[in-house]
Amino acid sequence: MAEQSPEPVRFGILGCANIARKVSRAITVAPNATISAIGSRTIEKATAFAKENNYPSTTKIYGSYEAVLDDQEVDAVYVPLPTSLHLKWAVLAAQKKKHVLLEKPVALNVKELDVILEECELNGVQYMDATMWMHHPRTIKMKEFMSDSQRFGTLKSVHSTFTFLAPTEFLKNNIRVKPDLDALGALGDAGWYSIRAILWATDYELPKTVTALRDPELNEAGVILSCGASLSWKDGRVATFHCSFLTNMSMDIVVSGTTGNLRVHDFVIPFQENVAPFYTVEGSKFGELLLAIYPAPSEQEVSTDLSQEALMVEEFSNLVESVRGQGCKPENKWPIISRKTQLVVDAVKASIEKGFEPVEVVY
Amino acid sequence: MAEQSPEPVRFGILGCANIARKVSRAITVAPNATISAIGSRTIEKATAFAKENNYPSTTKIYGSYEAVLDDQEVDAVYVPLPTSLHLKWAVLAAQKKKHVLLEKPVALNVKELDVILEECELNGVQYMDATMWMHHPRTIKMKEFMSDSQRFGTLKSVHSTFTFLAPTEFLKNNIRVKPDLDALGALGDAGWYSIRAILWATDYELPKTVTALRDPELNEAGVILSCGASLSWKDGRVATFHCSFLTNMSMDIVVSGTTGNLRVHDFVIPFQENVAPFYTVEGSKFGELLLAIYPAPSEQEVSTDLSQEALMVEEFSNLVESVRGQGCKPENKWPIISRKTQLVVDAVKASIEKGFEPVEVVY
Repeated sequence: MAEQSPEPVRFGILGCANIARKVSRAITVAPNATISAIGSRTIEKATAFAKENNYPSTTKIYGSYEAVLDDQEVDAVYVPLPTSLHLKWAVLAAQKKKHVLLEKPVALNVKELDVILEECELNGVQYMDATMWMHHPRTIKMKEFMSDSQRFGTLKSVHSTFTFLAPTEFLKNNIRVKPDLDALGALGDAGWYSIRAILWATDYELPKTVTALRDPELNEAGVILSCGASLSWKDGRVATFHCSFLTNMSMDIVVSGTTGNLRVHDFVIPFQENVAPFYTVEGSKFGELLLAIYPAPSEQEVSTDLSQEALMVEEFSNLVESVRGQGCKPENKWPIISRKTQLVVDAVKASIEKGFEPVEVVY
Repeated sequence: MAEQSPEPVRFGILGCANIARKVSRAITVAPNATISAIGSRTIEKATAFAKENNYPSTTKIYGSYEAVLDDQEVDAVYVPLPTSLHLKWAVLAAQKKKHVLLEKPVALNVKELDVILEECELNGVQYMDATMWMHHPRTIKMKEFMSDSQRFGTLKSVHSTFTFLAPTEFLKNNIRVKPDLDALGALGDAGWYSIRAILWATDYELPKTVTALRDPELNEAGVILSCGASLSWKDGRVATFHCSFLTNMSMDIVVSGTTGNLRVHDFVIPFQENVAPFYTVEGSKFGELLLAIYPAPSEQEVSTDLSQEALMVEEFSNLVESVRGQGCKPENKWPIISRKTQLVVDAVKASIEKGFEPVEVVY
């Protein structure tokens, strides 16, 4: 007799952020998740958002975040609030025994994040940050290439960018340029992804030092609009990244090993939803008389039926079900990765504040 | 009545370096140049090299470099000697009124280069470094894209790499890892190109500061096998590069402007001799619900009948003919570009020696 599928994980959404539209759709699409409730600061906003995003008619609409956390029929919350509100609401969610899917940047600094993570652990709830590209099957395929000692060799360098040209309106009014809402600016919003990409490439081995690139661009309130850093490990491995709100969009990871290279140009959000390319080359050689080099990189395409955000929701919900239905402990991998990413974010910020001195990173 | 074509520029080759094989072929192919003489430390070596490389039967074969410089039928010399010998032989060539096509790295430091450049100026001979990719028509096309304020906007960042995995034999015995021959190691050999690429992208505006990336890899003799740096300009523009003898081949330039990006993955030596690709994207946008980004980069291919090294020889020879046949002054652009490149090379080296402190660059 076939086992019965567990009930879908019931999500509550905290707030009506733009990104919540995409994640709401992902929750609807994921086979093991459903939208159960949404709360906003006013019930009117929540109602309008639920309608615009075709929420199920059964969704409970609340005029506060607290009400979502108090709903016994909510298993997990998705928290897309401004970063400065994460500490309060993620902690409260954990205390109310809700599993936490937390938008990035997850906290203003690792001290805040540690409070969130401790509260999640204490209350036995699953924590995951909403770094969607991690869940694309392309990410797994790329890692397979990099783990192949024949094809890729050992890692030597990583370069990553996430930049986009923010419109004037964004640069004036978006929460991501407001010191009281998202004080990490482009570093938290875009740099987060590149830092994660670098850590992903190094199998999450923290760098020895992080040194910010000189002369980041700041707005009048001192929020970072553009910055970068170099990272170094003890065995000569190096990484650099650049993130910006002031540059045409790029989402690159370029990873070089001793015998192969991998390039991807849309790692955060693919050019297409259901198929994503990356480029590999291995065993490169100079041709006769140094007239040419070969081979040229070749394209690999990875198809996916579910979008990366739906896959994220699916994986998170699987972990929630393990805790909820099978009494397992929450998966520790995600909090650790999240904390390491935050540590490097913090180190970049500290290096900027210290006049671009190298900052040591210790877990 | 059609003007008569000037006589081809007559080249003397100093030494039998591997790279001289490719440039000899280029001199043969270029319509306005011819090989007139070769000198090596022994006449046997010179004879064998001339034969192996199908030199014209009229080529004069000498058992010394001096003899080439004393040959009145030599207009110009190509100098592919180890870097530590450039000062002596480039200066002597200029004094003997030979135009100088000098392999890179052109000198051990800018002090040496200045002696060479002053001697060239004093003697009214053309100087050019042998940075071949500068002469590929692709380079002009890429610059056209970057100069288009609609498509590319204004420059914000550059990242460049030149890496290749040197065989064990190279790492033991090649002149490029010997402190007495090519003391700049990978920085001079590979980093030269990336630094030139960065300066090319910034229209040769020198950076305000150059800061070496921490922890370069050195061999036992202290020669650089792998290093990198970040460069910053006063208006928030940044650049990074990485060069290495220890990593699979990559030859990337990634340039980001406010409204467009350009990528090239074989900028030093194209994958194919007669056609070379680059990739541009402009006006990138997030799609509906941030589910995709668009457009994807598009490939541009640039064909060329003459290889980049033949085009280099042709351009150099045109300048030589302007001096020789028309009494023009030597073109000043090439010494200036060469000197700026050397200044940045020196700054990277100085930054490494100063414990990765930023180094100011002044022309």
